[in-house]
Amino acid sequence: MTRSPVVLGLDFGGTKIAVAVGDLSGRRLGATTIDSMAEAGAEAAMARGLAAARDLLAEVAPEDELAAVGAATLGIPYDDRVELAPTFPGWGEIAFGQLVRDAFPGVPVRLGTDVKAAAAAELRWGALAGCDPGIYLNLGTGLAAAIVAGGTVISGAHGASGEIGYNLRAAADVWIAQPERTILEDLVSGQALEATGRARLGRPVTAAEVFALAQTQPDAAVLTDEFNRELAMHVVNLSIAVDPVRIVVGGGLVGSWDRIAPGLRQALDAAVPFPPELTVARFPEAPLVGALALAVEAAGVVLGEEAFA
Amino acid sequence: MTRSPVVLGLDFGGTKIAVAVGDLSGRRLGATTIDSMAEAGAEAAMARGLAAARDLLAEVAPEDELAAVGAATLGIPYDDRVELAPTFPGWGEIAFGQLVRDAFPGVPVRLGTDVKAAAAAELRWGALAGCDPGIYLNLGTGLAAAIVAGGTVISGAHGASGEIGYNLRAAADVWIAQPERTILEDLVSGQALEATGRARLGRPVTAAEVFALAQTQPDAAVLTDEFNRELAMHVVNLSIAVDPVRIVVGGGLVGSWDRIAPGLRQALDAAVPFPPELTVARFPEAPLVGALALAVEAAGVVLGEEAFA
Repeated sequence: MTRSPVVLGLDFGGTKIAVAVGDLSGRRLGATTIDSMAEAGAEAAMARGLAAARDLLAEVAPEDELAAVGAATLGIPYDDRVELAPTFPGWGEIAFGQLVRDAFPGVPVRLGTDVKAAAAAELRWGALAGCDPGIYLNLGTGLAAAIVAGGTVISGAHGASGEIGYNLRAAADVWIAQPERTILEDLVSGQALEATGRARLGRPVTAAEVFALAQTQPDAAVLTDEFNRELAMHVVNLSIAVDPVRIVVGGGLVGSWDRIAPGLRQALDAAVPFPPELTVARFPEAPLVGALALAVEAAGVVLGEEAFA
Repeated sequence: MTRSPVVLGLDFGGTKIAVAVGDLSGRRLGATTIDSMAEAGAEAAMARGLAAARDLLAEVAPEDELAAVGAATLGIPYDDRVELAPTFPGWGEIAFGQLVRDAFPGVPVRLGTDVKAAAAAELRWGALAGCDPGIYLNLGTGLAAAIVAGGTVISGAHGASGEIGYNLRAAADVWIAQPERTILEDLVSGQALEATGRARLGRPVTAAEVFALAQTQPDAAVLTDEFNRELAMHVVNLSIAVDPVRIVVGGGLVGSWDRIAPGLRQALDAAVPFPPELTVARFPEAPLVGALALAVEAAGVVLGEEAFA
């Protein structure tokens, strides 16, 4: 009996690493998620992610040929490094592509930025389908977006389009180099909310806990109001620049969507000439879906519209 | 003897109206520019522009067939109105497309936003050629930009992409409706600089004069420093969102380029992860070139790369 080949998708985030095995039509055969444990170091996280992938393959497809691997990550991946990944200390120095290739010798590998992979997945099979242009907004450990137009994700001259975590926050920050000013991601991200939450509430809290506490505690509400206001300013200006049909939001903070969406909706309506729709992503793990799609593409298969549906 | 058909391009701006007649290959046969005299009203400006076009046709192509008309304008043109044209009082209520059609009965007409027409011209024949993605930035009477990607200008869901004149200037402005806050264009545009210049210097001045005075007068330098700082913040953030190869700048304020470029260059280098190139547009009248291209397209002619060269 001939077994079908399978593909592997990996999504390396600052908080979690997700892995999935699928067939060549995009159907998911199995998946697992582990904590990134960023505090234990980038190399350890990479090794644990690759081990989890091998374990999953052994479990759900022990005798199948691995046709290709798709690997998504925060930041911009290269074989010998990752650019623009400041929320994960040490991640920038990881030989990202090379380590993935070494783990699966002889297997085709395709790399991608997590948020762009997520946007591609939502564009093809999810909440951005038919949106021209559209915006995917990732509210996770870090902050980033992706612009889709003409049926594709805009990559940018250096793969860095949508990296709005680097945005200037005020005119006073113009001409000041980064170490001497606070970039947007240092205020608007899951990691930022946890850091300010810990500092101001006096104990370790997750971003989700800060949003939950904000319903009853004024000092937590101050934090989420600041977060929502600052986020809204930059999403409004990005929307004015792109004039999207729709903004689709993914990432871990979507768990607190009912505390984020009303303010964002109101800000868009107040300031964008033609306010776009605003919705959550179809795929809770859109970057992982995107990584699987990268793998299927690397295997040379052209996917139909029904894939991953 | 058979004469070749000609096309007509019109570019309606807040300060000037430019008109050109070309052949079907894009070669310009004649052009003229008149003041918009916005203070005399939108209808009068429209009528004077159309009259100037008829005069030019009579002068340079009296016996030639008019094959098509391309009409570019500030704002987003429709047959019965113009959206997002606040710098030209009354312009929004003009039946823009209909008036152009009425002036040239039976002739195909194509409408476009001036800045997007300019970006298309620069993308095809000018300083944005080969840039994927790229940004065209218009510093004129008003403020707007256009994003090019995948060999085309991103139009937006409502033709409004790039209308960064509406940007929020600070987090404090989030959730406040437009009449109660100052949009970016009210601070960063030729019109804004003339208004603040008149108020603070105590006499009527053009934007170019404010930039020239800034070299010797501290009170003028304060104005241009504010202008450059605010402009830089938004161009930096747009560049982070797009990751363009190059930013190409056009519009009347390019006449003061040596007072604008150094600060913008420095701001991009300080804050954009991969700083883009920065240059002036190839065509001083890029929107007019774009209007001529719209006309040639409306005539059904596919232009070669050598057109308008």
